[in-house]
Amino acid sequence: MAQIFLALLHHPVVDRNGRVITSAITSLDLHDLARSSRTYGVRAFYVVHPVAEQREFARSVIDHWRVGYGRAFDSRRLEALDLIEITADLDAAVTAAERVAGRRPTIIHTSAREAQGVSFAAMRERLSEHDTAPALILLGTGFGLASSARARADLALEAIRGAGDYNHLSVRAAASIILDRLRGL
Amino acid sequence: MAQIFLALLHHPVVDRNGRVITSAITSLDLHDLARSSRTYGVRAFYVVHPVAEQREFARSVIDHWRVGYGRAFDSRRLEALDLIEITADLDAAVTAAERVAGRRPTIIHTSAREAQGVSFAAMRERLSEHDTAPALILLGTGFGLASSARARADLALEAIRGAGDYNHLSVRAAASIILDRLRGL
Repeated sequence: MAQIFLALLHHPVVDRNGRVITSAITSLDLHDLARSSRTYGVRAFYVVHPVAEQREFARSVIDHWRVGYGRAFDSRRLEALDLIEITADLDAAVTAAERVAGRRPTIIHTSAREAQGVSFAAMRERLSEHDTAPALILLGTGFGLASSARARADLALEAIRGAGDYNHLSVRAAASIILDRLRGL
Repeated sequence: MAQIFLALLHHPVVDRNGRVITSAITSLDLHDLARSSRTYGVRAFYVVHPVAEQREFARSVIDHWRVGYGRAFDSRRLEALDLIEITADLDAAVTAAERVAGRRPTIIHTSAREAQGVSFAAMRERLSEHDTAPALILLGTGFGLASSARARADLALEAIRGAGDYNHLSVRAAASIILDRLRGL
């Protein structure tokens, strides 16, 4: 079974008008995605931000649960947050995943606007096969990944579809649904 | 197809030691669950809290997006938040759902610790049938619903299973996965 890695990108992402921006880190994204990652056997979760102060902020969120009060309060938080690695860009995340897996990961784009894309069933099948390359799943904050992030990916996953035309899931909800569709029992 | 309602309970829920508590409202729960509800065709999303000041807080979160700046910023937020109804207890949520659906809803308990429970496949099938009673799905904040909430339910849904023993999903992640399993395409 292929190893799965997640990368949460804060740049390049778009705002509601499609402009490329750098978004701020949301601490609950770190918690929720780490807990979903741990639940679904994700090997490492990369929090990617180009600004050093934002990376420091992410570290402080994790450290709160690693030492002192937070650790005593709930050790299962730490078990999840230990999956997080903070990097400055996507290249560093790819390199880190390759070091862990011993093989370059297939970079997989996700978007609520993806019209084509590999189906979840096909991707699940592919990732369950023996000797498949590891997968690095890209998630966008803000209003989603910019097209320049799409260009870095080897393939794209189909958009999540619900019951109608509205699909503005939070990245926390989307990530958990993607993992459940790919690895849930 | 049966209508689905969600109810997010802040009491009676348990803390990490299993003690019955009343948890505080998290504004991101309102946003995430409303967006997931809108995506999956949920008819109404009840935010249930016994404390009047907390219900006021929930109203202020919604009003921020209903008027002025928030509305101009992103109208799709409002489209989701409009699904929210704030109630003081579960009875009021059941009554409200019954008024909308014209029929008493089946109350469905959810828990990460549920060992028995109706399978997601069976529940999906049941909810897709013609003339099935509407479903009111109970979600617990904190470390989950207390047993007295379980006692109010007509049936329980099986726990979400990931890839191993760890299952400490956020209520935001769990709710989205539950809706996707019951209604996703």
